[in-house]
Amino acid sequence: MRCALVGATGIAGQQFLSALRAHPFITVSRLAASERSAGKRLARAVTLPDDRLAWYADDETLQVYGDMEVVDGRSLDLSGIDVVFSAIESDAARTLEAQYAATTPVISTASAFRYEDDVPLIIPAINGEHAGLIETQRSSRGWSGFVVPIPNCTTTGLAIAIAPLHRAFGAEKVVVTSMQAVSGAGRTPGVLALDVVDNVVPYIKGEEAKVERETRKLLGSPGTPAEVAVSATCTRVPVLEGHTESVVASFARPCPPEEARKALEAFGREVNPGTHPSAPERWVTVLDQADRPQVRLDRERDGGMTTTLGRLREDEVLGAHGLRFVLVSHNTKMGAAKGAVLVAEDLAARGLL
Amino acid sequence: MRCALVGATGIAGQQFLSALRAHPFITVSRLAASERSAGKRLARAVTLPDDRLAWYADDETLQVYGDMEVVDGRSLDLSGIDVVFSAIESDAARTLEAQYAATTPVISTASAFRYEDDVPLIIPAINGEHAGLIETQRSSRGWSGFVVPIPNCTTTGLAIAIAPLHRAFGAEKVVVTSMQAVSGAGRTPGVLALDVVDNVVPYIKGEEAKVERETRKLLGSPGTPAEVAVSATCTRVPVLEGHTESVVASFARPCPPEEARKALEAFGREVNPGTHPSAPERWVTVLDQADRPQVRLDRERDGGMTTTLGRLREDEVLGAHGLRFVLVSHNTKMGAAKGAVLVAEDLAARGLL
Amino acid sequence: MRCALVGATGIAGQQFLSALRAHPFITVSRLAASERSAGKRLARAVTLPDDRLAWYADDETLQVYGDMEVVDGRSLDLSGIDVVFSAIESDAARTLEAQYAATTPVISTASAFRYEDDVPLIIPAINGEHAGLIETQRSSRGWSGFVVPIPNCTTTGLAIAIAPLHRAFGAEKVVVTSMQAVSGAGRTPGVLALDVVDNVVPYIKGEEAKVERETRKLLGSPGTPAEVAVSATCTRVPVLEGHTESVVASFARPCPPEEARKALEAFGREVNPGTHPSAPERWVTVLDQADRPQVRLDRERDGGMTTTLGRLREDEVLGAHGLRFVLVSHNTKMGAAKGAVLVAEDLAARGLL
Amino acid sequence: MRCALVGATGIAGQQFLSALRAHPFITVSRLAASERSAGKRLARAVTLPDDRLAWYADDETLQVYGDMEVVDGRSLDLSGIDVVFSAIESDAARTLEAQYAATTPVISTASAFRYEDDVPLIIPAINGEHAGLIETQRSSRGWSGFVVPIPNCTTTGLAIAIAPLHRAFGAEKVVVTSMQAVSGAGRTPGVLALDVVDNVVPYIKGEEAKVERETRKLLGSPGTPAEVAVSATCTRVPVLEGHTESVVASFARPCPPEEARKALEAFGREVNPGTHPSAPERWVTVLDQADRPQVRLDRERDGGMTTTLGRLREDEVLGAHGLRFVLVSHNTKMGAAKGAVLVAEDLAARGLL
Repeated sequence: MRCALVGATGIAGQQFLSALRAHPFITVSRLAASERSAGKRLARAVTLPDDRLAWYADDETLQVYGDMEVVDGRSLDLSGIDVVFSAIESDAARTLEAQYAATTPVISTASAFRYEDDVPLIIPAINGEHAGLIETQRSSRGWSGFVVPIPNCTTTGLAIAIAPLHRAFGAEKVVVTSMQAVSGAGRTPGVLALDVVDNVVPYIKGEEAKVERETRKLLGSPGTPAEVAVSATCTRVPVLEGHTESVVASFARPCPPEEARKALEAFGREVNPGTHPSAPERWVTVLDQADRPQVRLDRERDGGMTTTLGRLREDEVLGAHGLRFVLVSHNTKMGAAKGAVLVAEDLAARGLL
Repeated sequence: MRCALVGATGIAGQQFLSALRAHPFITVSRLAASERSAGKRLARAVTLPDDRLAWYADDETLQVYGDMEVVDGRSLDLSGIDVVFSAIESDAARTLEAQYAATTPVISTASAFRYEDDVPLIIPAINGEHAGLIETQRSSRGWSGFVVPIPNCTTTGLAIAIAPLHRAFGAEKVVVTSMQAVSGAGRTPGVLALDVVDNVVPYIKGEEAKVERETRKLLGSPGTPAEVAVSATCTRVPVLEGHTESVVASFARPCPPEEARKALEAFGREVNPGTHPSAPERWVTVLDQADRPQVRLDRERDGGMTTTLGRLREDEVLGAHGLRFVLVSHNTKMGAAKGAVLVAEDLAARGLL
Repeated sequence: MRCALVGATGIAGQQFLSALRAHPFITVSRLAASERSAGKRLARAVTLPDDRLAWYADDETLQVYGDMEVVDGRSLDLSGIDVVFSAIESDAARTLEAQYAATTPVISTASAFRYEDDVPLIIPAINGEHAGLIETQRSSRGWSGFVVPIPNCTTTGLAIAIAPLHRAFGAEKVVVTSMQAVSGAGRTPGVLALDVVDNVVPYIKGEEAKVERETRKLLGSPGTPAEVAVSATCTRVPVLEGHTESVVASFARPCPPEEARKALEAFGREVNPGTHPSAPERWVTVLDQADRPQVRLDRERDGGMTTTLGRLREDEVLGAHGLRFVLVSHNTKMGAAKGAVLVAEDLAARGLL
Repeated sequence: MRCALVGATGIAGQQFLSALRAHPFITVSRLAASERSAGKRLARAVTLPDDRLAWYADDETLQVYGDMEVVDGRSLDLSGIDVVFSAIESDAARTLEAQYAATTPVISTASAFRYEDDVPLIIPAINGEHAGLIETQRSSRGWSGFVVPIPNCTTTGLAIAIAPLHRAFGAEKVVVTSMQAVSGAGRTPGVLALDVVDNVVPYIKGEEAKVERETRKLLGSPGTPAEVAVSATCTRVPVLEGHTESVVASFARPCPPEEARKALEAFGREVNPGTHPSAPERWVTVLDQADRPQVRLDRERDGGMTTTLGRLREDEVLGAHGLRFVLVSHNTKMGAAKGAVLVAEDLAARGLL
């Protein structure tokens, strides 16, 4: 399978290359980015005017792709391309992803199409079957391709933790406070060290509404969001990679922590590692140690693809049956690039790619 | 008024000295600490074996008190002392504070006596009148002095924000996630840079139960905690000073944000700056800017004595009438030493000191 | 005296406003910046698209100047303006500062004109008399105004420490390694948290050559650099404000540390605080404590205007007579905006403004 | 080969376990530490009173060794033990290592014996042949075993970079400023986040003298230090792991950077990976990119065992023929535990173990 990567020079784009470098059946055939980078080789496009390298993935990945030319995303040639991975800003995505989708499947980390009724928002172990919406999308829009976005990185960890609990106990309310890594803000303007060292910034524009809305869409059926009330407060902390989330949730039915743990640990077992090479061995890892999960220690667990959960305990405040826990999720791996590759694998397994 | 300071060599003790250095009517007459420091001058007692200075207040304060001798807290002479400020560990406090209280008033940052029925837990603008319990305490324990502890530093900011809302709208439920500074953990073992740089540690032993219990005690009447359900998750973040708290609260009555703001801004106005020189001009400062409060920018506001609140908005998830906000409170100033000095001022104004 | 500030929206520009807010005889009359900010009020011009405020000076300063309009620097009207403070990038400075200097004195933090023979580079206590070059500059360039740049922020601390030692002992060689704060890199692209948290970046483009060249120019006579060999290595560390420099220097004559200390402490005493309100009480502060200077603890000393020096000890490796020490200097105060205001005060005292 | 590890609960001790977990021919048979840990299982011994885990190596290593009992180092039974790895404090080492060495070879990260004339200080690729001193040591002290310490972690990176240059060009003078990670300070008291976040601490007790003295000993012949003058300034920066060093060196003979690079890259090639499984493939890695080495990006290169060097350029200030460069070395891997294991491998290959 040959892919084109749009937004290749940003942090999410770089993570796509890292996720695809050793992929068993997806090859990166073309790189695209904005006009500013067009015509440059990738290594040059990520070199700042002051000679520093704005490269946030591993060195080996830059060695592999550094000499590939970056083309202008607006004139990207999609001949021979099986799937487009899009890691561009949402404003640009609205136009460009539609342009690509006319002929080619697009899997995107951008939010542009996430809230459209005919667009599935997919995390395979949660709602892979929402892919059925693709047919609707194609016919309503007259596209040969399609757009499937993945959720916001903060939604991803939350939804993966809530989904098995929702199935088992019927989620009613969720209150979450996120402590998010700086990598999520990208490069321009990104989060300056001056902004966040020795600090917490309690605001990330639009993030809270995304978490609230996307969680309901993921947990619902195609076209019908789940009736789960979500209240999110999103903050930025001086952490390089990985989001930490403090979660309180209430359920329709009794949810003793030990039962909850079983539901969490069983989640995603049906995903086939043969067809889904990017899937984690465990979708959720539950730790017993009192002071875990810790984002620096747990974010890379299982290749950055598991949601690590700890401090699982009862809550009696939010509702009649409640749980509290803390989770860590890798925002640029499961929560972005590698999570999008996993969606590609899932769509391929379903014969849609 | 002459005070003795016990636990003078720790971070909270150092903040007491900083808070008292220019105090108009309280003088530091004696310093005490553990056996290890006894007999040394303060400056020597805070010098590590590797010559680094374990001093976390301002240089001027060390210049003023550095030559005072530190005595063993167990044999502290209280003759001529009007009040003891205690900044020692809770285990030691149980014995030592009782020993001091036999003859002398003790105001403490330790948790040892906080949950006793005959011990008031006081933040002046919230429940100064709880000081009435002192008479009960004296007669039940046969002490000439007394013990008045202040709340845990994480409780302090939360209770100051909730108290005016509780009065106005009747608080029912509170869900809080704290992002706490490293200074709160003290020096031994404290929080190593290795623990917390590029990290969030989602566990502080005993802290959550303290916040839940103390908030109810502060908001209630003497001997009867308020019926407010509090669910706390406490985390440590790479911030030097100042706690950030993400709060969702529900109320018995409608609480439009603009009304809430008025209640918050009016809070504490009756506290007299003449008798309470450590009190802030504003007990609560509400900011409009989207990305505030930020702990590095707001912790020192009003001498570290105001609770800065922002992102005040409706919440519809926790209960019928709800609010969400983020607050910043200085954990070693209002939340510890300077807050304890303020309690001394309040007790003095009530003729109890 | 009425000034215009060009580059008002950047970090250095913001520090100019902070330095001038309470200035006894300089008033900020006009603000200019790039085309992108032109026509906006300052508060709006420093608001990012994601609502965060890119403001790195104190809140009070933004309150004072936030409503002033920012004009396009290219069409800045200089009528009634006594001095232009320029905090723009060097590329733009080459054109714009020349344009302004045709009619008006310009004091600049940019490097554009620093190395021209007819342009003095001034730190008042070191070489205020270099201002004599202004006459040459005016006649050679046909300007009614002039350009006086201040040195690079890393040069400033070093030159202030070396100048008194050079006078006393004759400096021959200087080897310096800097550990520089992130604020020095400005806002665009600046230093992302992703670049520098848990890291040291051992490269700052062009910085080392600036330090080597400017130190010689400052210590020499007008037009003739001092014959001091300087070897600089410049690094970026995860520090918000303030540069730390590890210095080894050798001298022509014996330089016992106690003699060196006297020379350092006597330096700058002749600068008149009446005419130079921005000058520090002490130009150099020497500390005895083993583990000082520490940049977080010492950068704001004396309003960010003193160079704090510690660990002063002999060195026998670099040359026959040598000293080693560590210094801390505030890069955006003495090393930039406030240092430039001090130059304005010095030129005014000399009747040149 | 069966080893005992003394000082198993500290940071260096934990790194020994990590280095030995998958070692092809060394097995960890016994763990020892101070009285405080004696009788506890390792996992318990590294649990703090507040439930946090003071574990600074990987989780897997704790799983492997967590159930081993820790004994009191003073009464460690050495029967059946082929080598003792010692990671204890130097004060304790003076007594305990002598006690062990009476019967058993000891390889140590402590400084206690480093400066004794009959004690070799060894980095295999530099001066493995110094092991010949062991015979002298045994006969002079009447020991059946011996003590071989490894150098201080800051010396290690410097000596590995200077050794090949010394061989090629004859080193004369070295001026170094280190920017050291917090892990080097261990756990008690270690470096608190309060000490070092947003800060540089320009003092590490005794470190500079160690670097100066040990470098000469390593580069010399057994019993005769090299005549290289070293001037070191050691600082602590907010970095978790890995030391950065800014080095200027002068040589007796011309040393063009390209020649220097060849000498550096050829260094250590003779070390046999078959007998030395802990040795890096490359002892020195030279990078071309302008802004490298960066400690966060380069410390783990080659398993934390290579010295990564960049910014290699001429220097004309220190002496007639000079070089400047920046290096990164992993302080708890090559600079401590894993470096000590490598020495064990080297001594084994020489038939001394």
